Amino acid sequence: MGKGRLEAFSDGVIAILITIMVLELKIPEGGSPLSLRPLLPVLLSYLLSFIYLGIYWNNHHHLLHSVQRVTSGIMWANLHLLFWLSLVPFTTGWMGANRHAAVPAGLYGLVLLMAGIAFFVLQRAIIRSQGRDSPLRRAVGDDWKGKLSPLVYALAMGTAFVSAAGAEALYALVALAWLVPDRRYAQAQAGGA
Amino acid sequence: MGKGRLEAFSDGVIAILITIMVLELKIPEGGSPLSLRPLLPVLLSYLLSFIYLGIYWNNHHHLLHSVQRVTSGIMWANLHLLFWLSLVPFTTGWMGANRHAAVPAGLYGLVLLMAGIAFFVLQRAIIRSQGRDSPLRRAVGDDWKGKLSPLVYALAMGTAFVSAAGAEALYALVALAWLVPDRRYAQAQAGGA
Amino acid sequence: MGKGRLEAFSDGVIAILITIMVLELKIPEGGSPLSLRPLLPVLLSYLLSFIYLGIYWNNHHHLLHSVQRVTSGIMWANLHLLFWLSLVPFTTGWMGANRHAAVPAGLYGLVLLMAGIAFFVLQRAIIRSQGRDSPLRRAVGDDWKGKLSPLVYALAMGTAFVSAAGAEALYALVALAWLVPDRRYAQAQAGGA
Amino acid sequence: MGKGRLEAFSDGVIAILITIMVLELKIPEGGSPLSLRPLLPVLLSYLLSFIYLGIYWNNHHHLLHSVQRVTSGIMWANLHLLFWLSLVPFTTGWMGANRHAAVPAGLYGLVLLMAGIAFFVLQRAIIRSQGRDSPLRRAVGDDWKGKLSPLVYALAMGTAFVSAAGAEALYALVALAWLVPDRRYAQAQAGGA
Repeated sequence: MGKGRLEAFSDGVIAILITIMVLELKIPEGGSPLSLRPLLPVLLSYLLSFIYLGIYWNNHHHLLHSVQRVTSGIMWANLHLLFWLSLVPFTTGWMGANRHAAVPAGLYGLVLLMAGIAFFVLQRAIIRSQGRDSPLRRAVGDDWKGKLSPLVYALAMGTAFVSAAGAEALYALVALAWLVPDRRYAQAQAGGA
Repeated sequence: MGKGRLEAFSDGVIAILITIMVLELKIPEGGSPLSLRPLLPVLLSYLLSFIYLGIYWNNHHHLLHSVQRVTSGIMWANLHLLFWLSLVPFTTGWMGANRHAAVPAGLYGLVLLMAGIAFFVLQRAIIRSQGRDSPLRRAVGDDWKGKLSPLVYALAMGTAFVSAAGAEALYALVALAWLVPDRRYAQAQAGGA
Repeated sequence: MGKGRLEAFSDGVIAILITIMVLELKIPEGGSPLSLRPLLPVLLSYLLSFIYLGIYWNNHHHLLHSVQRVTSGIMWANLHLLFWLSLVPFTTGWMGANRHAAVPAGLYGLVLLMAGIAFFVLQRAIIRSQGRDSPLRRAVGDDWKGKLSPLVYALAMGTAFVSAAGAEALYALVALAWLVPDRRYAQAQAGGA
Repeated sequence: MGKGRLEAFSDGVIAILITIMVLELKIPEGGSPLSLRPLLPVLLSYLLSFIYLGIYWNNHHHLLHSVQRVTSGIMWANLHLLFWLSLVPFTTGWMGANRHAAVPAGLYGLVLLMAGIAFFVLQRAIIRSQGRDSPLRRAVGDDWKGKLSPLVYALAMGTAFVSAAGAEALYALVALAWLVPDRRYAQAQAGGA
């Protein structure tokens, strides 16, 4: 399988996920400005998940950059990642509808954690398929961000039961850390290609 | 018609189907962990259908690999397949909302059966269009999985009226059988190209 | 503008339209087979519109085949067509929810009529952009199907107020006429390319 | 990152946005023509937003035409634009459900204003990435439409609190101004390529 269709399919799924989340912004009854107020936490959790899915879309692209041949393992590891990402609209909506509630904030982190693990598994599947001189292995390096993020998600999940706002702040922090441009892939690509 | 647009359209429809299924995971009232419990069967049926649509997407790709020219027959056979797949979110949602109920579990199998038949019809349409030396015919071989699956779906439909859980187990079994990588296409492609 | 992005965008919109129609198949309360009965007219109107959108997708592809340069006129004529097609899920759902009712059956025809006119306008825009030796003009020929269909839609709209079932039969008839493979484009393409 | 995937992702998101707006056309109870009347303002606001998203899709294409290398800045500026566009279905639905109400009409303008600013930011990010001889800078010229539109949106937002209909007329006016084909990009492209 060429990677073109894998990329197109993944882009399609992520584009749909990022868009259907906005359907949770239910149109309020009446046109008063007060009717917008309960939507604010929904909007904020939408914004956070929009950024997360944007990060995944971006990182997914970098990940596939050096792929030449899509094995069955890569394909299923990719679908596994898309499965966890597909739960993000649900956890986003639940967290947005229950501001500062422990379980929704914790579940939000659990899905991020599983997506992070799925991303790691996909990375390994690609590196394995590329054999000894894997260009992705060199590009990834020690990948401290990829390794640290799941730890922070796990930490945030625990924090949620003490302070949901604290957990939400940790999620925002990780998102910010990923927003900072990542030079590793770019350099490896420049060096490799 | 080139096959590029046929693939892109099919990918688009399958990506949307796989994603709108998640809308059946309705966001519960309140943030209590107990409110998640009724969602568990919905999640499980979603997972099963996610795997099925992933399998169809994967097999669809292999099927089209050797297509050079998209005839009118191939196009309509493809839309016919997409029609049955488009009913999967409905049967998934109904089965998820009625755990271990006979009719929803049976209907789930009926749609899988029709999709399986539609896949077979598409396969024949492609082989017919390729003429005598059809590379797809060689690649497909005796296709025991493709022939056995509809039989199991039919068996599961009957089982549903005795034990819906039994039917669901059969659906999961077929999905697992397809998850195992299929070497036929890969070999034929390697030999042919 | 190259036509690649125009095709991809149109494919995306049609793929989404064909898929969100299925959301009108609301999952019934309870798992009894009787609960499926009111869904039958919804399913039938879905099937009809699925075929219509499939026909438009197919014809749209043939229409763009000979386009080299996408002018601003072509782009807006294309969006105009997509606008009318985007109303098909609404009229489909309304007709499906009100079996054999005059106004929904008539409105269904009105949207088909407007889409048919929009398709014709797009055809003219492309022919105009291709100048004197337009390959599309030769391919289209006298286009009796394209000219007859709007007449039948208009006839069906009138019929709807006498017999909604009669109107629905006319819609099905036009769909069948389009399902028959159209050799004009294929020949012109074979001759031209 | 090549621009192909950026374009495909943006096209996907805009195609989904333009399509899910139609879900706000809720299917009325019963088949009477009177039941369509409350849908008229919803349809009109849908039409307006359909045109706006069509304009953005078109302008987005022109904007990316001269991009060779997608930097991290361009990618995030693009996601920023998609975020504001993703709020259009919400403001469209709210304005459609509350005809001539001040706050919904004003909020509609605010989201247009933010999208206009995001488009400008994306333009700057591309020009910056292209360095001194930026072909986009030449193509854009003084861009009076791009600079005037946000001013009109801001004006319309103020107008909304006096006359919501007046604000809506201003939105329609800007849309019309953009519908007129824009020769700048075409010329610069012809000159450059």
